[in-house]
Amino acid sequence: MNPYQAPLKDMQFLLEDVFDATSTWQSMPDIADMVDTDTAMAILDEASKISRDLIHPLNRSGDEQGVSHVDGQVKTPDGFKQVYQQFAEGGWVGLCGEPEFDGMGMPKMLGLLVDEMGYSACNSFTLYGSLTAGAALCINAHASDELKSTYLPALYSGQWSGAMDMTEPQSGSDLRTIRTKAVPQDDGSYAISGTKIFITGGDHDLTENVIHLVLAKLPDSNGISLFLVPKITVQADGRLGEPNGVTVGSIEHKMGLKASATCVMNYDNAKGFLVGKPNRGLVCMFTMMNYERLAIGIQGLGSAQAAYQMAAEYAKERTQGLAAGGSPTGASSDPIIVHGDVRRMLLTIRAMTEAGRALSVFTGKQLDLAKYGQNEAKAKASRYVGLMTPVAKAFLTDRGLDSTVMAQQVFGGHGYIRETGIEQLVRDTRIAQIYEGTNGIQAIDFLGRKVTGDNLATLTEFVTEVRADIDTLNATESDKNAVLERFEVLLQTAAYINDNKLNQPALINASAVDFLDAFGYTLYGYYWLLMADKASTNNDADFSAQKVYLARFYIDKLLAKADYHLSQVNQGDSAIMAMPENLF
Amino acid sequence: MNPYQAPLKDMQFLLEDVFDATSTWQSMPDIADMVDTDTAMAILDEASKISRDLIHPLNRSGDEQGVSHVDGQVKTPDGFKQVYQQFAEGGWVGLCGEPEFDGMGMPKMLGLLVDEMGYSACNSFTLYGSLTAGAALCINAHASDELKSTYLPALYSGQWSGAMDMTEPQSGSDLRTIRTKAVPQDDGSYAISGTKIFITGGDHDLTENVIHLVLAKLPDSNGISLFLVPKITVQADGRLGEPNGVTVGSIEHKMGLKASATCVMNYDNAKGFLVGKPNRGLVCMFTMMNYERLAIGIQGLGSAQAAYQMAAEYAKERTQGLAAGGSPTGASSDPIIVHGDVRRMLLTIRAMTEAGRALSVFTGKQLDLAKYGQNEAKAKASRYVGLMTPVAKAFLTDRGLDSTVMAQQVFGGHGYIRETGIEQLVRDTRIAQIYEGTNGIQAIDFLGRKVTGDNLATLTEFVTEVRADIDTLNATESDKNAVLERFEVLLQTAAYINDNKLNQPALINASAVDFLDAFGYTLYGYYWLLMADKASTNNDADFSAQKVYLARFYIDKLLAKADYHLSQVNQGDSAIMAMPENLF
Repeated sequence: MNPYQAPLKDMQFLLEDVFDATSTWQSMPDIADMVDTDTAMAILDEASKISRDLIHPLNRSGDEQGVSHVDGQVKTPDGFKQVYQQFAEGGWVGLCGEPEFDGMGMPKMLGLLVDEMGYSACNSFTLYGSLTAGAALCINAHASDELKSTYLPALYSGQWSGAMDMTEPQSGSDLRTIRTKAVPQDDGSYAISGTKIFITGGDHDLTENVIHLVLAKLPDSNGISLFLVPKITVQADGRLGEPNGVTVGSIEHKMGLKASATCVMNYDNAKGFLVGKPNRGLVCMFTMMNYERLAIGIQGLGSAQAAYQMAAEYAKERTQGLAAGGSPTGASSDPIIVHGDVRRMLLTIRAMTEAGRALSVFTGKQLDLAKYGQNEAKAKASRYVGLMTPVAKAFLTDRGLDSTVMAQQVFGGHGYIRETGIEQLVRDTRIAQIYEGTNGIQAIDFLGRKVTGDNLATLTEFVTEVRADIDTLNATESDKNAVLERFEVLLQTAAYINDNKLNQPALINASAVDFLDAFGYTLYGYYWLLMADKASTNNDADFSAQKVYLARFYIDKLLAKADYHLSQVNQGDSAIMAMPENLF
Repeated sequence: MNPYQAPLKDMQFLLEDVFDATSTWQSMPDIADMVDTDTAMAILDEASKISRDLIHPLNRSGDEQGVSHVDGQVKTPDGFKQVYQQFAEGGWVGLCGEPEFDGMGMPKMLGLLVDEMGYSACNSFTLYGSLTAGAALCINAHASDELKSTYLPALYSGQWSGAMDMTEPQSGSDLRTIRTKAVPQDDGSYAISGTKIFITGGDHDLTENVIHLVLAKLPDSNGISLFLVPKITVQADGRLGEPNGVTVGSIEHKMGLKASATCVMNYDNAKGFLVGKPNRGLVCMFTMMNYERLAIGIQGLGSAQAAYQMAAEYAKERTQGLAAGGSPTGASSDPIIVHGDVRRMLLTIRAMTEAGRALSVFTGKQLDLAKYGQNEAKAKASRYVGLMTPVAKAFLTDRGLDSTVMAQQVFGGHGYIRETGIEQLVRDTRIAQIYEGTNGIQAIDFLGRKVTGDNLATLTEFVTEVRADIDTLNATESDKNAVLERFEVLLQTAAYINDNKLNQPALINASAVDFLDAFGYTLYGYYWLLMADKASTNNDADFSAQKVYLARFYIDKLLAKADYHLSQVNQGDSAIMAMPENLF
């Protein structure tokens, strides 16, 4: 199997031609001088080499070896530490970090493409850096200046790493019930005690310290607060001090992501520092969550991209049977890519993945505009971040699993064998539908808070803008109408939900996943019209033709999936809610 | 986690009330005296205990330990050999075998429910017996009397086991290219030489001998012949003789099914015996394939059933969040089964699994009628076996993966942890979409051979019969029409394919999976009307109500999936076939 090759041309196309990165960045005073598309492409080019030459070679061996937990120490697979140090030294952990604290200050719109390459190359490896970047983001947004200056430079440099500690055995999706306690100390710090589970990168040997962001409750409070708790205390001069009361109870044995340490963390009067205001921990955590949820969406996208490359290459090499109507080359056996069903699978993965990358870049652009933009553009981008983040997380990861399973199917029996590698992508990406809030919870967030929470204002604003854009695109009326009509039904369906959400309390919960999927499939129709239009002027005729073929395939073959999901949403909740629990 | 509990009441309902097992069996002279529904339920009750108490306890430990290959010997996990001996001594391997050779002579309609229990309890364990039963079936149908009397009793008794050897490295879906050779010997036997891969149960320590059915080519022939090749030769008196030239090259390391030995088998002038006529090996193999393909469909069904039980139990126990509109019990946290999205997943799995069991029993009934029936009933059943087998194999296994993935999602983060066990079902059942002919190949067989191969005659016959039956059922006109109209579109769509199959040679290959899925979702609509009707007179009010709730859910929420797939089939193949290979 050839090593992973980042789809640089597709990435450049999205940045330059589809989402106007250059003019977007020029409109942002904070970063206008730091990045243009030449810089961006140089960064992507370098990231593609690191992904291919350093990270991807760890993928299979990391899966086979896994992490271990011996004598209280978590050990990553061979090679991880060395490559992580090179990765960190290249500045990649701090790529989108604050320049004030030695981050590189790059926009997320660019950084997320680097994330995608990492996930394509090795899901497990990339999580360590992603969690660290997320923790740094949260600290930067909410922590005191003292905490920032103490912790951010070492996080951005990759010298230390970060982790998010939310879940407890009794408290997963519902964080009201956490029991971890934080007792104020005389020196202004807090003594943290409790047990957290499912902590990705909770401990490992890649870095000399792990900085935990821990949700806990203050005495006599049901509110949830956020604390920074280092594995090893940090002295006033920035050097490491005594070990803190932070230990690893065990590591989980999982379906996949075997080289990523998923830890049970025990806190026993560990020294922690309040981040943000007391009882406002969830607000602080959710700052990070929008980034992390997009990052997890990109885990699904990156896995799908890698799976596509493997399956397409296999389909071009593996000969079996003859093309319907006779071999095009007169061979006794044709490569399986001649078969309609194999092409159907490859085209589905590719069309979903390229539109998924458009969703990813669009959402990243909104994160940048919400952070660096001005006035109304900034406010609108914040609304769109809220709207699009749950879609990106859920739709990219659900389609990510579909894609890896479909790619595995292209391999036939060989796809079930570990050494082929494709089954690892299925196992590794499966978790992305679950963590950072299950995709069901993303859908409920989307429909309950983002769509109906403001009585459809943001959704209507977004769809109105999309419809206006579709009007300007070079496409047939038939194709435009195929997408426009579904957006119209989508708005009607959203209105039905909004009108009935009070008299049918379970309606949102019961309809949410179908509504999100309907939105996703319709949105991808828009992205394919947009990409076909923008590609039509590309000076690479093959590239241009490819986008037209893929757009045709998407509009003809996949867009109609929206209809099924739309048909599910406007029927009320009784078919789902009626059966009594004892009959399950 | 509670142990597996076979859904005996649902099974009994299908046998007695939905598919008239008693009158069916009474119509068959060969088995009328041997089985009635009391006998059948006694057998199912005993099988349920064995599945729960003996087989299921091997499932997790078998996955953790896996098979090993040391010094040329394949070793199954601890406990497998002991339980297999108990299983064999109970007569379960020969349950549907010929009484003439010490089989129990039970109908497949019953045996497949035992198979389902086995797959629910442990996929890996159940494969060993299933392959043995399949090999015995093929030998019984095609081998000489001498081979039958030498090999069948020891296969039915479980003293020896069976394996099918088709695939070679260069020859998977396309068997034309096999290279294994069979050279005639003076004593009437053949010397078999070659390498076979992906041989399930190719070697192991459960039985003292393994009887291989090997596809090979005679000298100077491109035809494919079938040979019986024992691992250890059998003397004239039936005792084991010298080892044959059959060795295990290696075992595969797989995504799942870790306790099932998947072997590379090397044949070096091994002594083999022709089964059936020279160059007619594929015909012999396909006798077995209809049974094996149904059995693999049932692997998907059994996994889905087990996954449902685990997820439903978890959803009733795990508390997290509050019901929309407030806790029904006033609790501070409700079991997650109150949430619409969780119910949606559970209802989907259950509605698909119960209809899947109906498909399975219907297909088994046709196998029995084709074997034991009389005159036109026998001939019609043979046509229906051909029509339904690829649907049962593909649709049951595709929905089996969907169901296990959905059940895993109900578990949230706990679903990704190995010790929970649900992720093993996902990994174990994934192969069922691939082996015994990938589901793409099943779909092409269905649309290309079974549907359009006779210019829609069998499909039309079947649909006509179903429509007439729907007219007699107790259901609303609206619900009946929802199913009837989709059958109408299905026939129109099939006619479109049939009319265009010559001018668009790739059309069948490109449309097959969507056509099969459209048929499956429409057919399940019929099964739910049928089951709701038959359950309405059940004296267990809860049971009756449950079937009505599930039918309502299926008709309202899942039947419309047929529409998407139907919409894909009548568009020609250009969206799939047009893009040149170099642009993939």
